[in-house]
Amino acid sequence: MGKVNREDSDSKDEKTEYSLVRVKGTWKRQLKKVKKDTCDCVPAAKIYDSITEKGITWTVVSPVVFTYKVTETQDLLDPVNDTLLLGHITDQQQLEDFKKSNKPIKRFVVVDQEVYKIYGPKITEYLEANNVLYKLLALPTTEENKSMEMVLKILEEVNNFCLDRRTEPIIAIGGGVCLDIVGLAASLYRRCTPYIRVPTTLLSYVDASMGAKTGVNFANCKNKLGAYIPPTAAFLDLSFIQTLPRRHISNGLAEMLKMALMKHRGLFELLEKHGRMLLDTKFQADNSPYGCNRLQAASQTTRIAITTMLEELAPNLWEDDLNRLVDFGHLISPALEMKVLPSLLHGEAVNIDMVYMVYVSKESGLLTEEEKQRIISCMVALELPVWHEECTMELIQRSLQDRLKHSGGLVRMPLPVGLGQADIFNNTSCEILHRAYKQWCNELSISTDGHCNP
Amino acid sequence: MGKVNREDSDSKDEKTEYSLVRVKGTWKRQLKKVKKDTCDCVPAAKIYDSITEKGITWTVVSPVVFTYKVTETQDLLDPVNDTLLLGHITDQQQLEDFKKSNKPIKRFVVVDQEVYKIYGPKITEYLEANNVLYKLLALPTTEENKSMEMVLKILEEVNNFCLDRRTEPIIAIGGGVCLDIVGLAASLYRRCTPYIRVPTTLLSYVDASMGAKTGVNFANCKNKLGAYIPPTAAFLDLSFIQTLPRRHISNGLAEMLKMALMKHRGLFELLEKHGRMLLDTKFQADNSPYGCNRLQAASQTTRIAITTMLEELAPNLWEDDLNRLVDFGHLISPALEMKVLPSLLHGEAVNIDMVYMVYVSKESGLLTEEEKQRIISCMVALELPVWHEECTMELIQRSLQDRLKHSGGLVRMPLPVGLGQADIFNNTSCEILHRAYKQWCNELSISTDGHCNP
Ligand SMILES: NC(=O)c1ccc[n+]([C@@H]2O[C@H](COP(=O)([O-])OP(=O)(O)OC[C@H]3O[C@@H](n4cnc5c(N)ncnc54)[C@H](O)[C@@H]3O)[C@@H](O)[C@H]2O)c1
Ligand SMILES: NC(=O)c1ccc[n+]([C@@H]2O[C@H](COP(=O)([O-])OP(=O)(O)OC[C@H]3O[C@@H](n4cnc5c(N)ncnc54)[C@H](O)[C@@H]3O)[C@@H](O)[C@H]2O)c1
Ligand SMILES: [Zn+2]
Ligand SMILES: [Zn+2]
Repeated sequence: MGKVNREDSDSKDEKTEYSLVRVKGTWKRQLKKVKKDTCDCVPAAKIYDSITEKGITWTVVSPVVFTYKVTETQDLLDPVNDTLLLGHITDQQQLEDFKKSNKPIKRFVVVDQEVYKIYGPKITEYLEANNVLYKLLALPTTEENKSMEMVLKILEEVNNFCLDRRTEPIIAIGGGVCLDIVGLAASLYRRCTPYIRVPTTLLSYVDASMGAKTGVNFANCKNKLGAYIPPTAAFLDLSFIQTLPRRHISNGLAEMLKMALMKHRGLFELLEKHGRMLLDTKFQADNSPYGCNRLQAASQTTRIAITTMLEELAPNLWEDDLNRLVDFGHLISPALEMKVLPSLLHGEAVNIDMVYMVYVSKESGLLTEEEKQRIISCMVALELPVWHEECTMELIQRSLQDRLKHSGGLVRMPLPVGLGQADIFNNTSCEILHRAYKQWCNELSISTDGHCNP
Repeated sequence: MGKVNREDSDSKDEKTEYSLVRVKGTWKRQLKKVKKDTCDCVPAAKIYDSITEKGITWTVVSPVVFTYKVTETQDLLDPVNDTLLLGHITDQQQLEDFKKSNKPIKRFVVVDQEVYKIYGPKITEYLEANNVLYKLLALPTTEENKSMEMVLKILEEVNNFCLDRRTEPIIAIGGGVCLDIVGLAASLYRRCTPYIRVPTTLLSYVDASMGAKTGVNFANCKNKLGAYIPPTAAFLDLSFIQTLPRRHISNGLAEMLKMALMKHRGLFELLEKHGRMLLDTKFQADNSPYGCNRLQAASQTTRIAITTMLEELAPNLWEDDLNRLVDFGHLISPALEMKVLPSLLHGEAVNIDMVYMVYVSKESGLLTEEEKQRIISCMVALELPVWHEECTMELIQRSLQDRLKHSGGLVRMPLPVGLGQADIFNNTSCEILHRAYKQWCNELSISTDGHCNP
């Protein structure tokens, strides 16, 4: 994070640069020829003066450029893999200088307590083998503990540890809750200390580890306090997922499906074809003849999910643009999630929201009956709930009205228009919303009880 | 704050645009022709892929542009002046729509308790006269209370008040402590709620109200927790200064002198000539024949101080660039301030730091004896302390070593080179540091006792 850093120009790795261009409410990557030795221009800061009889106004325009890495790797906790300790450094010179200096590495590490029970010995071994001066904090980072108190507790320890705010990033290892809490603590410490996210759930692998958002719950409201500060790096290793409970795999698949429906038909087709297998194998290869295929499906689907997610996040890191495809599934689900807490996981609530929206698309003539059915079948195969009795018409209307209020007077509803394509709509009629609801209940309320186990 | 907003192009006000260009370690405004109807370019966000045998790395480059206003006005609390309520809105269309809508204005206001004692009735009257739905919180925002607890207390109240995170900025009225605390609360609320700074001390008028820094003390360390989020606007009204204790006027003058010494000979000469008068009159006009002159000196000096400050802040809002002229006076003073707490005010500690550095400049051959004497005389006239027994050679060396550690291995010492010009130095010898210290003590230790009352 910080200045625009370009990797060393004589690096031997393949490297491709994309610019992001706006296409119909979404962001697409556009391949760009990288001209070596030309510096990407960041607009100079500006000051405008304006003098009136009342006084003088200076308007200050000041760009801040965030740069961060998302790295998918294998064997992150193998002592010979230095990604966790040095992978965030973008400047080759700095990296070489550091390696030459033989200075010991100092790291403050926070791990989710449940993750610590499984991976604690490996993490400790890794740090010891690399001679790291470390403080390892295993904390019960649950949704109930996702609070400012936990943030301050971490900060006390960070302060006692005396780390260098510029060169010693704080490392967080865990699910979305752990990453959100630690991210906020780091963002507050000395007004911004770099931190590293290591996601250990599928949901955080494809979602919570990518963007700038951090946060904690406050006064009974989800993520009411927080900051928009991206990590200096996110290091992803699929092998963590193997110990995750099955229901949490489905949970993460919901967010992948969201990106598929909004932006990528290919990803949807992969989830249709391999989704159930990925759920069964927990995104892992095995020694069977199919091992290689499995790994390919796991890495292909997660990579597409990540790329499409980054395309939407990078140009809109602070969510200034209110038209966001990534909000699909997130218009009604927050109210539903809070209402039935803790019976639905985040991705499950998102999925219920998405199914209803699919019916809205269908009733609006944006999806065919066949496309609708394919989407629902895919969700069922991923063991995601497709209906919930607490998701009433009244809750839907209240949620959309709330959205209207907080989105500058427009509802900005992302809807699929075909498979893997979407657009933002503002004028969906009340009649369509009701018809969709009725149809949804007719078709799906009987066969499920909130949790679909076909 | 948020997107780049350009004022309406058919606005009748004088308006000038400046770009900031780097000149020898400092930033200078450069006049730029404003081409109407051309949009200033913000670089598109970018994603770089890089595939190695270990895995894949996406490098995300994402610019976030902060836009904010600093407005100097008169009669801010006159009910007919709508600056406090609407002055932050940059988009003319939005402003007109709002005025037409006749919607009541809703504002959450935090005021320093001492300021409330003096200006409370006027503030209340202003809000009532403008039919504002308001919550006014008067808090003891002292340095001792500058803590996360106070932030959370404000946040509880903000949350109960149910404000719209996009259109209803939180207003802070007080000195630097109040502005820093409220700024942090707003920055945390829903990951970033706009806020407005109304400085009531001279120090916050020319310094704490301009930049992006917010913060609170933590674990006995000054400003250890915080955020870099500029206010959506700062509204400045010199008339608040009239009730400020004399010592706090000197305190603010120290930060103005800092900008003068670093960047603006004209400002230095104004302070030399009118500084004592400004201190006596507390930056106010009166009905004497000199009233008009006084007002001119007050407004001229504060405007130059603000402009030079903004020039340094705008291109370096998040302090990514470690070479900062605004750090002058802030290398040794933090340790000194903490050591003698609460006997020195911030600006007083800064001044002691600056005098020592002036001796370093002199010993380095960067300043003549005459220039040195003029600077010291000016400080004495402003009733600022020019020596302190607790500012020992040992404290100086420890501070510079600390700086070395936190500034990427270079000491980056801003030093005046003539009056109103400066540069950053990294190789000042130990010998010069000692000689300067000795000379300083010889010349100034006898005539003062820490507080100079000539
Ligand atoms: N910042 C963002 O952009 C963002 C995006 C989406 C969600 N979130 C947040 O993320 C949170 C949800 O994240 P989550 O679904 O990862 O929940 P979580 O962090 O609560 O993890 C789920 C459960 O799995 C356990 N666990 C984690 N890794 C494991 C592993 N490898 N093996 C076995 N058990 C493991 C945890 O202890 C926990 O009990 C919510 O608070 C949500 O607000 C944030
Ligand atoms: N954010 C920044 O960029 C920045 C820059 C410089 C300083 N600061 C912070 O600002 C703080 C110092 O600010 P300060 O000097 O304004 O101190 P302060 O806020 O403590 O105010 C000084 C005293 O003056 C009183 N006061 C304020 N306005 C008054 C008025 N109009 N009339 C009478 N009394 C009044 C206050 O009650 C207080 O007792 C420090 O905590 C420092 O860290 C922040
Ligand atoms: Zn989500
Ligand atoms: Zn200062």
